[in-house]
Amino acid sequence: MYHKRPVNFAGIRGNAVLLGQRFVGEVLHKGSVAVDATAGNGYDTLFLANSVGECGRVYAFDIQQSALDITARRLKQFGLEKNVTLIHDGHEKMDLYIVPPVDAFIFNLGYLPGGDHDKITRPSTTVKALQIALDMLNPGGRISIVVYTGHLGAGEESRTVEEMAAKLDPRIFGVLKVTFINRSASAPFLIFIERVKKENENLAP
Amino acid sequence: MYHKRPVNFAGIRGNAVLLGQRFVGEVLHKGSVAVDATAGNGYDTLFLANSVGECGRVYAFDIQQSALDITARRLKQFGLEKNVTLIHDGHEKMDLYIVPPVDAFIFNLGYLPGGDHDKITRPSTTVKALQIALDMLNPGGRISIVVYTGHLGAGEESRTVEEMAAKLDPRIFGVLKVTFINRSASAPFLIFIERVKKENENLAP
Repeated sequence: MYHKRPVNFAGIRGNAVLLGQRFVGEVLHKGSVAVDATAGNGYDTLFLANSVGECGRVYAFDIQQSALDITARRLKQFGLEKNVTLIHDGHEKMDLYIVPPVDAFIFNLGYLPGGDHDKITRPSTTVKALQIALDMLNPGGRISIVVYTGHLGAGEESRTVEEMAAKLDPRIFGVLKVTFINRSASAPFLIFIERVKKENENLAP
Repeated sequence: MYHKRPVNFAGIRGNAVLLGQRFVGEVLHKGSVAVDATAGNGYDTLFLANSVGECGRVYAFDIQQSALDITARRLKQFGLEKNVTLIHDGHEKMDLYIVPPVDAFIFNLGYLPGGDHDKITRPSTTVKALQIALDMLNPGGRISIVVYTGHLGAGEESRTVEEMAAKLDPRIFGVLKVTFINRSASAPFLIFIERVKKENENLAP
């Protein structure tokens, strides 16, 4: 049995991941299509698989086979493996595997916690993957991006992603940046993106 | 009948207010005690009055009598005036009127939209009021602060509030800053504060 963990806003580890799950979870239901763009330790894949149920579908990408193996074991443990397609490829090639629209994407940018710190996401592929996600996103759909900033090269990636998100047309995308301001400067931050339900409705006067 | 409005993350007006209501609304129930530190147009007071019900209590402060009059009318319209104590005084004197603990506080810092733009909140009284709110906050309780930045003097106030929030002990308070990064630089931002349920539990390793 899979239990959702409560969101805690305090200064504990793992907060960013839970906040991200919760943001996308609010628009998911049984039958939704969701993508874990960075399977990593499989926690987000597990969350998505539980949210979309057997009639839904989750696509989980990772360039590290070891990450997909961990994810597969975790899904099996909860009997949720049937809901998920694991794909051993970079998320910049998502469009080769998925037919839009997609209801939610989760990205974790940076390194795989507990994994090989040399294997980090790169700005060039990240931007490509994000653009694909934006194009595939269903109206009302959401993207959560957790940006880790403690590793070498993190500065360039986080700036690139934030700049890209900041340029999104506010008539089509709502964009929030969420920062844990009473934690260290190297704490992760989040970018939340929501595609508005009908384009050009709710225009700012 | 009072209906909650759905939260929309897109670039429309009023978002910040709805996000703030939602953040504190998650910890409120019938019987809770809540404070609208800046009654303004009364929308937050109305939201809080509906959330805490007749067994609960809302205290709404404003230094402008006109704001309290608008708020009173709005509450009456929905039959919620019995749940609220309106106080014509500055929020830096909240401790004269309220017995702690309090489950939620809402602050709107800046000017009263549609009101007199000379009547703005000031850093010195704001900091005093926030300190009182932090001291009175129940474990598990939340504070939402919407910071408007488009008026004269806004820079000093927003910096002061953000610095104060950033210094809060992460073992006791979870603190998030939420920014609408694809809107203009003068868009409001939010500070979300949550007091952890038990002090010193969930310490970061």
